[in-house]
Amino acid sequence: MLEKIPVRYQLTLDKILYRAVDQFPDVEIVYKDKVRYNYGEAYKRIRRLASALEAIGLKDGARIATAEWNTHRHFEAYFAIPMMGNILHTINVSIAPMDIAYILNHAEDDAILINEDFLPFVEILKDHVKTIKKIIVLTDKEDFEPPKIEGKEVYEYESLLRDYGDESYEFPEVDENKVASLMYTSGTTGLPKGVYFSHRQIVLHSLVTPLQFVYPGVTLDYRDVALSLVPMFHVHAWGLPYTFTLLGFKQVFPGKFDFSVILRLIEKEKVTFMAGVPTLLHMLLYHPESKNYDLSGLKMVIGGAALPKGLYEEAKRRGIKVVSGYGLTETCPILTLSNLKPGMETLPEEKKDEIYMSTGFPWPLVQLRIVDSEFKDVPKDGETMGEIVVRAPWVLTEYYKDPEKTAEAFVDGWFRTGDVAVWTEDGYIKIVDRFKDVIKSGGEWISSITLESIISTHPGVSEVAVIGIPHEKWGERPMAIIVPKPDWIDKITADDIKGHLMKFVEEGKIPKWWVPDHYEFRKELPKTGTGKISKRALRDEYRGK
Amino acid sequence: MLEKIPVRYQLTLDKILYRAVDQFPDVEIVYKDKVRYNYGEAYKRIRRLASALEAIGLKDGARIATAEWNTHRHFEAYFAIPMMGNILHTINVSIAPMDIAYILNHAEDDAILINEDFLPFVEILKDHVKTIKKIIVLTDKEDFEPPKIEGKEVYEYESLLRDYGDESYEFPEVDENKVASLMYTSGTTGLPKGVYFSHRQIVLHSLVTPLQFVYPGVTLDYRDVALSLVPMFHVHAWGLPYTFTLLGFKQVFPGKFDFSVILRLIEKEKVTFMAGVPTLLHMLLYHPESKNYDLSGLKMVIGGAALPKGLYEEAKRRGIKVVSGYGLTETCPILTLSNLKPGMETLPEEKKDEIYMSTGFPWPLVQLRIVDSEFKDVPKDGETMGEIVVRAPWVLTEYYKDPEKTAEAFVDGWFRTGDVAVWTEDGYIKIVDRFKDVIKSGGEWISSITLESIISTHPGVSEVAVIGIPHEKWGERPMAIIVPKPDWIDKITADDIKGHLMKFVEEGKIPKWWVPDHYEFRKELPKTGTGKISKRALRDEYRGK
Repeated sequence: MLEKIPVRYQLTLDKILYRAVDQFPDVEIVYKDKVRYNYGEAYKRIRRLASALEAIGLKDGARIATAEWNTHRHFEAYFAIPMMGNILHTINVSIAPMDIAYILNHAEDDAILINEDFLPFVEILKDHVKTIKKIIVLTDKEDFEPPKIEGKEVYEYESLLRDYGDESYEFPEVDENKVASLMYTSGTTGLPKGVYFSHRQIVLHSLVTPLQFVYPGVTLDYRDVALSLVPMFHVHAWGLPYTFTLLGFKQVFPGKFDFSVILRLIEKEKVTFMAGVPTLLHMLLYHPESKNYDLSGLKMVIGGAALPKGLYEEAKRRGIKVVSGYGLTETCPILTLSNLKPGMETLPEEKKDEIYMSTGFPWPLVQLRIVDSEFKDVPKDGETMGEIVVRAPWVLTEYYKDPEKTAEAFVDGWFRTGDVAVWTEDGYIKIVDRFKDVIKSGGEWISSITLESIISTHPGVSEVAVIGIPHEKWGERPMAIIVPKPDWIDKITADDIKGHLMKFVEEGKIPKWWVPDHYEFRKELPKTGTGKISKRALRDEYRGK
Repeated sequence: MLEKIPVRYQLTLDKILYRAVDQFPDVEIVYKDKVRYNYGEAYKRIRRLASALEAIGLKDGARIATAEWNTHRHFEAYFAIPMMGNILHTINVSIAPMDIAYILNHAEDDAILINEDFLPFVEILKDHVKTIKKIIVLTDKEDFEPPKIEGKEVYEYESLLRDYGDESYEFPEVDENKVASLMYTSGTTGLPKGVYFSHRQIVLHSLVTPLQFVYPGVTLDYRDVALSLVPMFHVHAWGLPYTFTLLGFKQVFPGKFDFSVILRLIEKEKVTFMAGVPTLLHMLLYHPESKNYDLSGLKMVIGGAALPKGLYEEAKRRGIKVVSGYGLTETCPILTLSNLKPGMETLPEEKKDEIYMSTGFPWPLVQLRIVDSEFKDVPKDGETMGEIVVRAPWVLTEYYKDPEKTAEAFVDGWFRTGDVAVWTEDGYIKIVDRFKDVIKSGGEWISSITLESIISTHPGVSEVAVIGIPHEKWGERPMAIIVPKPDWIDKITADDIKGHLMKFVEEGKIPKWWVPDHYEFRKELPKTGTGKISKRALRDEYRGK
């Protein structure tokens, strides 16, 4: 008997596409009001795209960047590029142009598929990105004339497919462990970090995704129509275009984000399923035209940030079923979903809402632990904080060209998420802080987010940040830095805030020792490039004191 | 960048078990009216079982046979044995004892878990199976005294767990390509053939199983309670105990098949999901006590043989939702399921019934082709026959110690199922014959089963077999061998049968050239050991002519 069974079937992305092409060739793929075709036709264009890329020399592991909205063309690239053995590098088009240039250089990309909207960026490309020799412009215009750019070959996507594409192109057998995709995380601090995934990792993520939707909450159904709302430059749009292809669902691509268009598409295409960050849900609900649409029956998975209660409640009022997911770029991304566990259907509505808004429970194949500073599992008591560490088939292997960051990120094969959470008794996780922001005091942890959340409810507080400052006996102690509301300036005192916090202590919401010793009032807080409060700058400032 | 991403997460069976243990520890597992426990407690016993097996020397890839009914103990063995790096060899207890002895010797098993009901078999074991040194008896009796058997160590399962088991046993990391299970196919001809699967193969089968149940027909739901009806000695009970553990469903094990017990369990435990061969459905519906039970709401997947229309209709009348699946022991097993495709819900009821009774459409990751004798794909016209060949992550690698049969079974990496089928225009397959029975005439194929089915509707026909006999011009021509009903003996003629067949030709049901040239009437047909008509014996007899 063979000691080990040889792998004769590769878990590659073609298997996902072929499923839809073979079994659901007539199911529609829609791009705004511009394109309506089906999986059978998409496959032909995917073959054309691959053969055309090969014809212009992009083969054998070429790295091809995409700077594109959520379109059917991006969908085609999602399959064609990795299936032919090249690497799909999706670019976050919302970051600063010079950061994009840094990323393209760091990735050593060979070519870029770039939407016409970003053509001004080509100047930067010309001067600052040497590795990219080929530029393929994506546009809806039929008479588009590609610009001449010195030192670069420039093509237009549709004519490339027409002139160089071969509908009978046969994709090669690719090893399942070959790199399929590359992307960069845009952390709040430091340079963007490169993360890459294999075919096997993406395929396994796609196979497991539907399994978490068996439980009450947001479910998947053969009648579902998915609108691609997660930007396709974010971790394979959370893997959903792959999962929906595997299941043969109708998919709708809205192009550049315009909620006027999106609302119309939801109605016209009978969209039932979407996913995205809370901001997208906010835009959906509060867009001026939103009230003209019946959104009831829509299902939505929220991730990327905590789901505010008010937003959840407004969505519920509109008849939208919302649950939360959790994951990181480094984890391809999804790790948890907040559907109910069997038996919880009978819980009071309020309790169910609380669960739907929580971080959820782990997916199949996701081994998720919450560990203390000695890497021991914390009890499932809803209180004891620890850092989330995970193992899963789709966790990154390394940060690209960054052995130092890679070494920091793993302990005994467990990936450190940098998120601090508690386990509830029901086996759900609740994120309470970022590891770098949590305050380590007397061997215990204090959630800066919880303190900020309480302090922000004081009527005189406009903004607040809580950080840990060094303390001889306790290691760290919390300090609150507060921007008062205009008419409270010079009136509000540390005792006011302390008194406010003590009410929560008396109600048993927080322990007494969490109450900060130091309070600082100032006119403003330092912000990062993306507008978040920079706790790092605050720590640098106050820890030096 | 790494050329290939190293696999740091093994797709091993522990991942499936841990899912249920971590997330659904309180969900019940029931064995008849004897045992009711949950996944959390099952895990403790699984750890005990593994550590006890190790304690008595069964480790490092030991081959452990099981001769056991569908019980919670068998469920425990399903996980403990492969998870500890041993090989689970499930024995079909319904075959002849000397065949079992052959299998145990061929497999070189080290030990056997054997139900008390099969203890008479131990005499054969003693004399004819030398490799097995350890016998573990499984019984519900509390005061069971294991028999003394010369040359063998004999244990009783429960006391083994109690005396040697360690609840804190830690399972080792196992390579996903390591062999997890071994079993033998009991074909109608020749010796049983050994087939074995890796952890990875079983895990991928388990992950994909729920994905086919998204479509209309039989669906899976978090409220489902599964009764294990497929004998656990048949290809991991079609993988369902693993799939249901992954999903955290309640599982019910009925022990030895007794439909009086099974009906009671269905009612008491609120069973909603079962799978099995048509015979099991027949027993469920026509057991004398069946009419006392309300079976409506039950869902059932039928496989292993064609689903007779009468049986399907009676099930439907009783409110049972039935669909068909298709697979072979060699394919781990499932390849297709006959749920509807999206959009088919609006078909007329009769058409839907026809689809549910068909062989279904391929699962995700299953690459299924129907090919002609030149290995070219047949058109999807509902008519052109070909052999089903497949690739899937869970197809066998080789027949154990049988390179000749292995070589015959594969063409260019495609596994030949030996089943002849047509594609419908909707992309469903319909099996029409076994490859060895199909008649190859003038480069085209004639379905022996279709001809038999038509001839059997003639009022004078008791039994019929149609075989191909050599023909100089056409290669083969069909010949019908008929056993007339008693009062038709010596009256029925070839012209009667021909005339009967011509009516079907006129209705366009079969082409004229299918009508057999030769008819033979005789008193009986040769049968195989399991009571099926032996076409092989008939061919040997008539081809010589």
